[in-house]
Amino acid sequence: MHDSDSIGIVTPQRIHFDTPLSLESGAVLDSYEQVYETYGELNAARSNAVLVCHALSGNHHVAGVYADNPKNIGWWNNMIGPDKPIDTRKFFVVGVNNIGGCHGSTGPASINKKMGKHYGADFPVVTTIDWAKTYVRLADKLGIDQFAAVVGGSLGGMSAMQLALDAPERVRHAVVIAAAAKLTAQNIAFNDVARQAIITDPDFHGGDFYSHGTIPRRGLRLARMLGHITYLSNDSMAEKFGRELRTDSLSFNFDVEFQIESYLRYQGDKFADQFDANTYLLMTKALDYFDPARDYDDDLSAAFHCAKANFLVLSFSSDWRFSPERSRSIVKALLDNKLNVSYAEIPSRHGHDSFLMKDEHYHQLVRAYMNKIST
Amino acid sequence: MHDSDSIGIVTPQRIHFDTPLSLESGAVLDSYEQVYETYGELNAARSNAVLVCHALSGNHHVAGVYADNPKNIGWWNNMIGPDKPIDTRKFFVVGVNNIGGCHGSTGPASINKKMGKHYGADFPVVTTIDWAKTYVRLADKLGIDQFAAVVGGSLGGMSAMQLALDAPERVRHAVVIAAAAKLTAQNIAFNDVARQAIITDPDFHGGDFYSHGTIPRRGLRLARMLGHITYLSNDSMAEKFGRELRTDSLSFNFDVEFQIESYLRYQGDKFADQFDANTYLLMTKALDYFDPARDYDDDLSAAFHCAKANFLVLSFSSDWRFSPERSRSIVKALLDNKLNVSYAEIPSRHGHDSFLMKDEHYHQLVRAYMNKIST
Repeated sequence: MHDSDSIGIVTPQRIHFDTPLSLESGAVLDSYEQVYETYGELNAARSNAVLVCHALSGNHHVAGVYADNPKNIGWWNNMIGPDKPIDTRKFFVVGVNNIGGCHGSTGPASINKKMGKHYGADFPVVTTIDWAKTYVRLADKLGIDQFAAVVGGSLGGMSAMQLALDAPERVRHAVVIAAAAKLTAQNIAFNDVARQAIITDPDFHGGDFYSHGTIPRRGLRLARMLGHITYLSNDSMAEKFGRELRTDSLSFNFDVEFQIESYLRYQGDKFADQFDANTYLLMTKALDYFDPARDYDDDLSAAFHCAKANFLVLSFSSDWRFSPERSRSIVKALLDNKLNVSYAEIPSRHGHDSFLMKDEHYHQLVRAYMNKIST
Repeated sequence: MHDSDSIGIVTPQRIHFDTPLSLESGAVLDSYEQVYETYGELNAARSNAVLVCHALSGNHHVAGVYADNPKNIGWWNNMIGPDKPIDTRKFFVVGVNNIGGCHGSTGPASINKKMGKHYGADFPVVTTIDWAKTYVRLADKLGIDQFAAVVGGSLGGMSAMQLALDAPERVRHAVVIAAAAKLTAQNIAFNDVARQAIITDPDFHGGDFYSHGTIPRRGLRLARMLGHITYLSNDSMAEKFGRELRTDSLSFNFDVEFQIESYLRYQGDKFADQFDANTYLLMTKALDYFDPARDYDDDLSAAFHCAKANFLVLSFSSDWRFSPERSRSIVKALLDNKLNVSYAEIPSRHGHDSFLMKDEHYHQLVRAYMNKIST
């Protein structure tokens, strides 16, 4: 299963934070656990740390494998490792699971010790602003004054941007991939359909499905099926599935007729078994709320006035979820602030999911940028 | 409520067909009712009839209003009427509700007399090929040997194309608007998510919800919300809703936060009260199955070899459901067969829904084309 240049076995770590965390919503999280992984070695100057932020369904397991489950390979294993574009011989890479998540950090499926039961619907809405605060706290614990780089794709790219805005002294470079400065009405619309699918599933029980011994499988499955459509491009779907039938002839019923239906239903089923529905809701809301220009009269250039980092911004030609145009608006705002920005629009047929894929051009760009970062 | 040039009050009509109808699926419908409306007068030569085919959620009520409900205006009232682009002073316009529908023609919500209960899940899958047969039968009953024109948008455009292919002697002109020669994998994928939303709704009861006194409201609502996203363009959504909040400040919960959410949920709720879930499933399947080139090795030009009609093909620049590129492939196939084709790509910001809207450029094109048809 491993690439020859894989990190190999990695182990998640956990820190308990008991200083209350004030959230953007006004709610306060009295304490929380943050799960993370690290790869490579922090250098003596503590200047080579790279934070990797995850997207909607990602987590802290960014690269390598687990000793007890060698099939569980990190979601960005093609990008991070020895001699890979983010080279763990040079960098000390930190992967983190956002609070609100469902892979170890405190989230809706965690036990609320005050209540003696799962947080469920009581878990507060969290935003990229809240996560940026947790990244700073984690950096403090790890003795990292400044990240050499903060890197992420999609919601992870937005989280990286947020940290660069909110803690400019803590970020030397920000690598923002397949992201946008805010969601469009259409982006929000897709998110809301996904949320409504979950929330109206009778097994959701207002978010407290844990205590009912159920999961809102139907809703989560639909949400994931829908999500998948937006992650792929029209062209890549056409190439991969076309109108191929599952069997030789048309069956004229509501079973799977075309391969694309089979694929989507399979993806939906698999996801519904693995992911927490409340976390799905929270992550889509974090996307909706991300909007650094909100407090600046919708002026993104004004919103970036505090930023100090150097930026690499990357977009993919076939990404219709967060199109290249959206990345260019980020680049413009950065240039308006006379920040150092490198930008590339990468030709790709794989849509939004391109940021997760191994593409020579894409990986060379990241590699070249990361190589020139001094540590 | 009326335009000054509206047809005014119209009355639906109904014909019972008791000759069995063999369907593409192999199933046979022993008898069925077909509901339709007509506007204008059939001329002495019976040469001025225009058939209007409806899209997914449309029906036979194409123009005018009902005496008992003056708010129930036909869905294409802006297009059809005295002095309108399809001028009822010149043409005898026939609107038809497809079988499988839920507005009077025999469909899943009809009583299956053999069984003494609603068809429900027993209603067979119907396709544009089946509908084309019913259009011919209706024409026979109305004494129309040849339609001056068959007109439709979206699925209605596909139905018009199908009739022009299957009954070439019966169609003098075909007006195919915002359609495609077949669905893409992405189109099918959206349809399948909508269907899965309905089918997995516990209130669906395998399609026999009628006898349970329920409707799969949650599923149908989600299907319509999702459909609406694909009917609008990214730009029109942005213009209409942007990121406007429903209230002055963010509420950080799962109620409606942005206007677009309010709009979509409202559209979903309204639709779920009015439309039959089984019909929704059938209409999306009719879309999936439409593929005249299927029996011609995917060669659309070969598929059109029997067609004789003159064609007007129209697409809209911002339609990402059935993009102009899809219409151009139809035009190419028609030209390959040396048929007369007029084609226009209409600049529009309203996405797929443009075909229902009153746009000067669009309406002038249809008007000019319809005017030159000799009757």
